[in-house]
Amino acid sequence: MVANKQVIFTEIPEGFPEAEKNMAIEESTIDLDAKLGMGEFILKTLEISVDPYMRGRMRDPSIKSYAPAFDLNKPMTGDTMSVVIKSNNPDYKVDDLVYGRTGQGVFAEYVHVSAEYAKNAYVVRNDAKENKLPIRHYVGVLAMPGMTAYYGLNKIGKPKPGETLYVSAASGAVGQLVGQFGKALGLYVVGSAGTDEKVKHIKSIGFDDAFNYKDGNIEENLRKCCPKGIGNAVFRGLVDVSFVTNTNLFILDIYFDGVGGKMLDAVFLVANDFARIISCGMISQYNLAKPEPLYNVINVLTKRICFDGFIIMDHMDYEQTFLDEVTPLLVSGKVTYKEDEVEGIENTPSALIKVLKGENFGKMCIKVADL
Amino acid sequence: MVANKQVIFTEIPEGFPEAEKNMAIEESTIDLDAKLGMGEFILKTLEISVDPYMRGRMRDPSIKSYAPAFDLNKPMTGDTMSVVIKSNNPDYKVDDLVYGRTGQGVFAEYVHVSAEYAKNAYVVRNDAKENKLPIRHYVGVLAMPGMTAYYGLNKIGKPKPGETLYVSAASGAVGQLVGQFGKALGLYVVGSAGTDEKVKHIKSIGFDDAFNYKDGNIEENLRKCCPKGIGNAVFRGLVDVSFVTNTNLFILDIYFDGVGGKMLDAVFLVANDFARIISCGMISQYNLAKPEPLYNVINVLTKRICFDGFIIMDHMDYEQTFLDEVTPLLVSGKVTYKEDEVEGIENTPSALIKVLKGENFGKMCIKVADL
Repeated sequence: MVANKQVIFTEIPEGFPEAEKNMAIEESTIDLDAKLGMGEFILKTLEISVDPYMRGRMRDPSIKSYAPAFDLNKPMTGDTMSVVIKSNNPDYKVDDLVYGRTGQGVFAEYVHVSAEYAKNAYVVRNDAKENKLPIRHYVGVLAMPGMTAYYGLNKIGKPKPGETLYVSAASGAVGQLVGQFGKALGLYVVGSAGTDEKVKHIKSIGFDDAFNYKDGNIEENLRKCCPKGIGNAVFRGLVDVSFVTNTNLFILDIYFDGVGGKMLDAVFLVANDFARIISCGMISQYNLAKPEPLYNVINVLTKRICFDGFIIMDHMDYEQTFLDEVTPLLVSGKVTYKEDEVEGIENTPSALIKVLKGENFGKMCIKVADL
Repeated sequence: MVANKQVIFTEIPEGFPEAEKNMAIEESTIDLDAKLGMGEFILKTLEISVDPYMRGRMRDPSIKSYAPAFDLNKPMTGDTMSVVIKSNNPDYKVDDLVYGRTGQGVFAEYVHVSAEYAKNAYVVRNDAKENKLPIRHYVGVLAMPGMTAYYGLNKIGKPKPGETLYVSAASGAVGQLVGQFGKALGLYVVGSAGTDEKVKHIKSIGFDDAFNYKDGNIEENLRKCCPKGIGNAVFRGLVDVSFVTNTNLFILDIYFDGVGGKMLDAVFLVANDFARIISCGMISQYNLAKPEPLYNVINVLTKRICFDGFIIMDHMDYEQTFLDEVTPLLVSGKVTYKEDEVEGIENTPSALIKVLKGENFGKMCIKVADL
């Protein structure tokens, strides 16, 4: 029998969750020597990812939705990387590295998995052994956040060289990649983040310009940083319905939004005609009792904006393409990925709170054990 | 010399414009016997269209925009139908019927046109003589409003049989057509309008259901009328970020929006996952000093909505397809078009105000003269 710490969801939060109030670390035991049933195997968890979307799962499960709320008093789940340490399942061999899919990898030091649960939740990812990338990359840049960045920019943003791309939360799990992918596509890339240190980092990884959104007016900062991307067809109280178009006068814009709220409302004002707004998250809204009001939505009409929300789990058929294209970029060092890694599964709740407060610097992940 | 009444833009309105304050009828004279310069011709106006977008042109021209503001103390412009009564231009022969494009047909009883102005503004449309459709159809269902309905629903809405389509302003110039086109495509079509008489009319032209948006709560009405189209993944204060999808559980939805504001905000709440919101106008916002706040925009993310603004003048390459496909539907009576026609060019300002107040019943147009 060995000790087995688990991250448990203990209470539905109102407003901002707290590490010790809404979650807990429970220590049980697991018998690693017990005989496994047909198809069963045991995972030792190496790395856990915490991400903003998890706030949405900390809700009353009676709220009608197809998205799984966390079960009260059960282990939380999310992207994980593990190693098989014992197996009675030919598809998951001892020493195989295994990725636990978004919302399905169990947050425990050891996980006893049935064949049925494994089918949708766990994927063998042994390339992680060969290419020497850090295991933590497999819950971030090569998992849900990375695919969100890659799919969103390419498939929804439809970027064309020379366009201006703006990325909020630009030092975060998704944003830092959107910016680097955008540069590789020949875009002019502007980012924002919440500290000067983050802003400096964004510029160091190739963003053309960046600003601290807590420092000064967002709209003014955007106008300063996006010289080609703004200033047209502004709606201010007086409606500006535009119906005769001279499209080649304007540079098209892309906004990759993970923030929502006031940030999004400012972008509506400064976006160009025919801008694409890609929404993969609205972290500024997740802990509010009532969402912030937006006043500038009419620009979607007057500027013919395409404002598109997406959740990467709807596009898993793109996963292999994504892995095939992005893994080499990491191996060659053409794309870098900054992670904010803490050690010890017991730090998972506080790491999640850090993410929700924007206090992480880079992709937040938790190292549970060495390989 | 004959008398020539013109509709003049006289003052930039703040808030709601008034027929006599912001516009005026001026009577000058025109010499129909004077010799025409090379390429010149004279039009006698038959029909004028007034439309909600015209409010946006009643602005200070110093507000930076590529869309033409109305020139102060000059004739207003918009969709018109006219007949050539004198010509020194082989492309515009006497008795030719001529369509004045959106924003370019001059609102006067007689218009002296140069070859240069004619090139972009005026199109010969002699099929109007052959197919016996009323001339007024050529400034409405076969002009900007009709093309807005047809293009928006087909190209942006990407409708699939069985889906639920909701149309606001459903007895108006665009909405009545969106609904009929939607029924022809096998959609379940729901509309709303501002009087019981309009609601009755909407149902009489084939809408499956309809409600008076001034009567009761919009969201509740929508839930009642769209049995298959609503109720999923509702965001109410608590965030519902959905990431595991079972798309075949849900009926996709389309909302064709000409209203914006509270109506749009209610639709965000009741829309299905993967809904398309097509915005061709936001008439509820055009006369407000400050736009109404929207609170439910986060649903664009959680429901993966595609919210797309468009202005039909960007898509004039679609005009011939549109005319080829829709004209036969009118000739055969498969699609009907209700118009609210007043007589006399002097009634143009009050007709426009009527439209902005939603007091028109059907497409508003002004009969200026008989052919």
